[in-house]
Amino acid sequence: MLIMLPGPIQLHERVIRAMCRQMIGHRSAEFGEILKFCGEVMKEVFGTRNDVYFITGSGTAGVEAGIASFSGVGKFVTLENGKFGERMGEIAERYAEVERLSFEWGKPVDLEKLKEALERGARAVAFVHNETSTGMLNPAEEIAKIARKYDALTIMDAITSAGGDYVKMDEWGIDVAVVGTQKCLGAPPGLAAVAVSERAWEFYNPKCPLYLDLKAYRKKLPELQTPYTPAVTLFFALEEALKMIKEEGIENRVKRHRKLSKAVRTWAVNAGLSLFPQPDKYSDYSNTVTAINIPGGITEKELRDTVRKEYGIVLSSGQDKVKGKIFRIATMGSIEKFEVMATLTAVEDVLLRKNLIKPALDFARRELQP
Amino acid sequence: MLIMLPGPIQLHERVIRAMCRQMIGHRSAEFGEILKFCGEVMKEVFGTRNDVYFITGSGTAGVEAGIASFSGVGKFVTLENGKFGERMGEIAERYAEVERLSFEWGKPVDLEKLKEALERGARAVAFVHNETSTGMLNPAEEIAKIARKYDALTIMDAITSAGGDYVKMDEWGIDVAVVGTQKCLGAPPGLAAVAVSERAWEFYNPKCPLYLDLKAYRKKLPELQTPYTPAVTLFFALEEALKMIKEEGIENRVKRHRKLSKAVRTWAVNAGLSLFPQPDKYSDYSNTVTAINIPGGITEKELRDTVRKEYGIVLSSGQDKVKGKIFRIATMGSIEKFEVMATLTAVEDVLLRKNLIKPALDFARRELQP
Repeated sequence: MLIMLPGPIQLHERVIRAMCRQMIGHRSAEFGEILKFCGEVMKEVFGTRNDVYFITGSGTAGVEAGIASFSGVGKFVTLENGKFGERMGEIAERYAEVERLSFEWGKPVDLEKLKEALERGARAVAFVHNETSTGMLNPAEEIAKIARKYDALTIMDAITSAGGDYVKMDEWGIDVAVVGTQKCLGAPPGLAAVAVSERAWEFYNPKCPLYLDLKAYRKKLPELQTPYTPAVTLFFALEEALKMIKEEGIENRVKRHRKLSKAVRTWAVNAGLSLFPQPDKYSDYSNTVTAINIPGGITEKELRDTVRKEYGIVLSSGQDKVKGKIFRIATMGSIEKFEVMATLTAVEDVLLRKNLIKPALDFARRELQP
Repeated sequence: MLIMLPGPIQLHERVIRAMCRQMIGHRSAEFGEILKFCGEVMKEVFGTRNDVYFITGSGTAGVEAGIASFSGVGKFVTLENGKFGERMGEIAERYAEVERLSFEWGKPVDLEKLKEALERGARAVAFVHNETSTGMLNPAEEIAKIARKYDALTIMDAITSAGGDYVKMDEWGIDVAVVGTQKCLGAPPGLAAVAVSERAWEFYNPKCPLYLDLKAYRKKLPELQTPYTPAVTLFFALEEALKMIKEEGIENRVKRHRKLSKAVRTWAVNAGLSLFPQPDKYSDYSNTVTAINIPGGITEKELRDTVRKEYGIVLSSGQDKVKGKIFRIATMGSIEKFEVMATLTAVEDVLLRKNLIKPALDFARRELQP
């Protein structure tokens, strides 16, 4: 089976092997060294000099830790143009007054509306950088620029961008950034990393959930420990995955992700399919997951089931509002050229048989030239 | 190295190997089967017909999910005679009014004080079954009986008892029980399982943390899914660990844990050491972790460091209030006779050299006869 999901992703053999070892105590010096190394590489991935905290939990746990821990800031505004933007709104509602700015899924966020919300007194902006549910890259830099003008805190879900596309937390002026390990970092699911600016601590809320209280993680970091028992096995895997990121280099890694996703988009458009997201001059197509509209004449279920049964390749469906309307091909982690070509070959085969598209593999192949 | 910590524990080779496989999608039927199997075995472990929910996070995440999700019940009373009891108090304070009943570490909880708190209007009792920090087994059945008289909700931290000692949630009348995978279940750290009675749902609080909101886990269970991305790798390991529990049988497993811990206690007392906890007629010594006072003439650090360096065996220190005063030997998971004897041999060797104890290995050996 080849997993082409937007997380969890296909694991590299090195990462799988890293987990095949006996447990170590999480208060040991050995674990401390792993935590230290992971923190250092994560700073590079996030483009920050801020400390990075690791929570055992999904990306959602990381986002909630960021929102809850700094919910003392005041009123939030959330930018929602997909499932994960909506989730940020739901989280924020549990801790603070929120103005949830809702946009059509796959359509850009309206930066003017953001300004208006900030004028009305919002003190924090929570948004998704790479919206996995729609394949849209939201304009993090522009959003942060506007937020800074109003001195608002910025909390960014970088769960499916960090490690696969540029994330420049310090340069852009982001206060809190979150990633999950099972996406572009190339590790298994179960850990979230959260980077926090000094400024965010001014808005610390001691009534946040104990397990997601970033102050406890901050207190334990100098001892190279976590406040609660971490998923040690997943740290073994993350350490190896981050070694691979160091070896490849972040610039090269971003280039690879961009090249692979561009090949998928180029194939889709030339085959006669249409991409789901409709970026404007500020936003863009995602470089880690491509969302494609299901053409007439086949159901999403039939397409994905046939590709899985015949080729052993797992594609992603649409979630919630776009269920049955789109399919998604992720290009995350250690995915390479051959896996992308294998996937496009499979999808093309199934759609060609029904005369729903034109052959377009050559277009992808050209994009993937070294 | 041999890990004799009260979690994370030494992993069985089968459990380690179970993780050495490629990722699968967490929305796949294959993952669903694993979740189903784990839920079924966990019901037996908890002694319940209630549904069991799995949270990716530490045991603390599980306890917080239980307290927060049902914090609509009203005032809490917490029983605190060790670190983890205190943690329950800290968690409860973030969600509700709490009367924190504090007892000396290692001393029994006073059931009369519990009654008084219930008389004063507490509507929920949160307590630790097996208090790892002190090696004390609190009287879960007695506590639940009193709570039921006052119609109060019971939330039990069974993190280091379930799978190693008897937990009879339904028989005792416990509403919420929590376990972590890295203790007596014999799996790596990173998952918590929470069993919930029907009655608890009457007190659901929709303002609980989203990531720890058990209602979301309940909603997804019939689809054999979790609401947020689970740590799939850890489920591979847990599935194998639970298969081993099925093969051994829960009765046999509890007997083994009891026998091993009794051997440790018998050795300690006959060697001239003293046990830290002082149970009364309701409470007991823990059957999964033994806490022993450090004798005069050696520091805790010297004892543990020497045992680790010379024998490669990792013992546990005391935490917080008893740091430096006790050492702890855990007998959890797949630990067997030879590992216990190796540990006692090592500790005895180091202490004998300093003339701090009498030889007592034979007493342990006798306890461990088949």
